[in-house]
Amino acid sequence: MTEVAQANGVFHLEDLRVGLRFSSGTHALDEAQIKSFARQFDPQPFHLDEDAARDTLFAGLAASGWHTAAITMRLMVDGGAPLAGGIIGAGGEINRATSCMWKARSSRSRPLARVRTEEWSRCAARP
Amino acid sequence: MTEVAQANGVFHLEDLRVGLRFSSGTHALDEAQIKSFARQFDPQPFHLDEDAARDTLFAGLAASGWHTAAITMRLMVDGGAPLAGGIIGAGGEINRATSCMWKARSSRSRPLARVRTEEWSRCAARP
Repeated sequence: MTEVAQANGVFHLEDLRVGLRFSSGTHALDEAQIKSFARQFDPQPFHLDEDAARDTLFAGLAASGWHTAAITMRLMVDGGAPLAGGIIGAGGEINRATSCMWKARSSRSRPLARVRTEEWSRCAARP
Repeated sequence: MTEVAQANGVFHLEDLRVGLRFSSGTHALDEAQIKSFARQFDPQPFHLDEDAARDTLFAGLAASGWHTAAITMRLMVDGGAPLAGGIIGAGGEINRATSCMWKARSSRSRPLARVRTEEWSRCAARP
């Protein structure tokens, strides 16, 4: 069974057991934050402008997924994952983003384009 | 074989074929940007302070992985993935981040703690 950890202090490796869970605090996200992040990192209409966002999949202004990911990181750093030494995603280095078409389906009811973004060399090795 | 797309204009669904590749521009990342992002979203010593960073896995100041991800998004939006209608990661909603211990190994030579961050309900269903 899972076990809810008391996030008092920091956990070291010897304190960690499979199944431990840490729950983060919360963050209130508002329109100003959404637009500010979007202007810098994800300037697409549905993240920048209510009117333009209305006719998209989101049907309204939506935060960039990278914004919610970054906020999630902040929540983890602020106690949601109290690991001694810090939290990093080890591995991965990208010099230039290459986007490869992975799947393309021209269907009236369920059109789909799936794109993977990764290093050029790995991209090139694929179909 | 893969095919390098000329990113003149925007690609619509009917223009997309499996194997198409789009290459982005580049972005020059400096210390000020690294620290500014880290203060907001990932305030850990190795993203904030050269001296503190020296004794970590990075052996020097390193950008948050979420920062490089966000910059990658910007490069895609700026022409690295010129798809009509925009680029979104469809799916996923997180209210509160739950971090579950996935693996813990107390080894002197290769210590490891693997954590997954996801919704509480999914986390709870795991070991």
